Amino acid sequence: MKLRRSGRLVDMTHYLLERPHQLIPLTFFAERYESAKSSISEDLAIIKQTFEQQGIGTVRTLPGAAGGVQYIPKMAAEEAEEVVAYLCEQLSRPDRLLPGGYLYMTDILGDPRIMNKIGRLYASMFADRPVDVVMTIATNGIPFAYAIANFLYVPVVIVRHDNKVTEGPMVSINYVSGSSKRIQTMVLSKRSLAEGANVLIVDDFMKAGGTINGMISLLQEFNGNVSGIGVLVESEEAKERLVDEYISLVKLSEVDVKEKRIAVKEGNYKAFL
Amino acid sequence: MKLRRSGRLVDMTHYLLERPHQLIPLTFFAERYESAKSSISEDLAIIKQTFEQQGIGTVRTLPGAAGGVQYIPKMAAEEAEEVVAYLCEQLSRPDRLLPGGYLYMTDILGDPRIMNKIGRLYASMFADRPVDVVMTIATNGIPFAYAIANFLYVPVVIVRHDNKVTEGPMVSINYVSGSSKRIQTMVLSKRSLAEGANVLIVDDFMKAGGTINGMISLLQEFNGNVSGIGVLVESEEAKERLVDEYISLVKLSEVDVKEKRIAVKEGNYKAFL
Repeated sequence: MKLRRSGRLVDMTHYLLERPHQLIPLTFFAERYESAKSSISEDLAIIKQTFEQQGIGTVRTLPGAAGGVQYIPKMAAEEAEEVVAYLCEQLSRPDRLLPGGYLYMTDILGDPRIMNKIGRLYASMFADRPVDVVMTIATNGIPFAYAIANFLYVPVVIVRHDNKVTEGPMVSINYVSGSSKRIQTMVLSKRSLAEGANVLIVDDFMKAGGTINGMISLLQEFNGNVSGIGVLVESEEAKERLVDEYISLVKLSEVDVKEKRIAVKEGNYKAFL
Repeated sequence: MKLRRSGRLVDMTHYLLERPHQLIPLTFFAERYESAKSSISEDLAIIKQTFEQQGIGTVRTLPGAAGGVQYIPKMAAEEAEEVVAYLCEQLSRPDRLLPGGYLYMTDILGDPRIMNKIGRLYASMFADRPVDVVMTIATNGIPFAYAIANFLYVPVVIVRHDNKVTEGPMVSINYVSGSSKRIQTMVLSKRSLAEGANVLIVDDFMKAGGTINGMISLLQEFNGNVSGIGVLVESEEAKERLVDEYISLVKLSEVDVKEKRIAVKEGNYKAFL
């Protein structure tokens, strides 16, 4: 359908935002709008400039016959700080404290408004690493994984604690929970992950890192590569950390159940922005 | 930041797409771009026209002091048919058949590319109903619920089969699984749902409707209202349907494990488009 520049700008912006990281040939847009490639290039320059100026991301152009344009979601340091400050403020509310020193986070994980920002922030930090899928463990990690996968435009695979589900043949491993030292099991459907995939491992909460470590072991059964590790909240309490390299937004530094006090500070994410 | 029309169109398109159904006062945009309200109105007319023409949705203007503009995600009948045809083709592949007549759907549920389309389609059908939250049951319903909630811009609440999780006080009910006739339990964290909320109940798969029925009972404990019921796939096999009014995209009409044959057809969604 023939569109004027103003209409093209609106439609191209939507088209690109819907497909982060996907390479789109210039000829696709030229045909879509019955416009010259030179006009399309001018449109893309405007979109790129606005995206960068407004902290939305960037538009990358790859030259050559196999080339095209890609929208790369990014988040500016300033907006990232706002997101983390909001999380810290939310998580330090004393009514979040549950018996055992756990924190109620379900409302945050259930809110697409904040989760989309968190997803864009992680996608921004992992933008230049090879990621074929995002892996997490049921149940609380799922919204976090989807939020990131949406902005990396890759599938999610979900590891489970049980194999009662109907997913066909499963691969299972045992792992030791870092904090409770108990032996537990995690399983992944055999057909849900291709051999040799590049995998971003994420979870909403990390104490000693036993669960993350378990996912790394499980991934080895599929000959996969760890592209990175992301956790929303890490607990500083852990004496012995089983995982070395990870990105966290928030660090829980003190939980005092008796005094109903929670101390949170920002995680290590700034080094990866 | 002062922006010219072309930059404004790109940024406003992004701003609106990021916040479906949210009412944004015209003065917000006028201040954001240091532009006259009349220019902003012209920009919005271009965006509205392009959104409608390209089947992205519409931009609704509410007049008055408390007014503003809202992006309402929509999907044209033609695109909806393409989505459903793709799902039917995917789901009829014999290698999806698992013992017991179950279908492997995890890859579809894990792919943001198709799930975003499905989410926009359901959000389109429920656009004019009051929806405060989307409710689903762990684990497979979660990606489906998030995809819809993203386009309705409301939170997700997740019902569980166990209460081993650390979510504070829970409300639990017993229900009878429609197909297996077994008594089962489902639980919901007490603080995850406000009293009297308008709730869209969704699940990835419905046989007789026992699980959906259970969620309706659970919702009654919170004095909530059912805004609607959405399932991705329904099974025609069920002799006795426990749920009357629901929207489905795909109907599984025959599963022959022995012959490795699956027959699927489109669900009842067209009546709600």
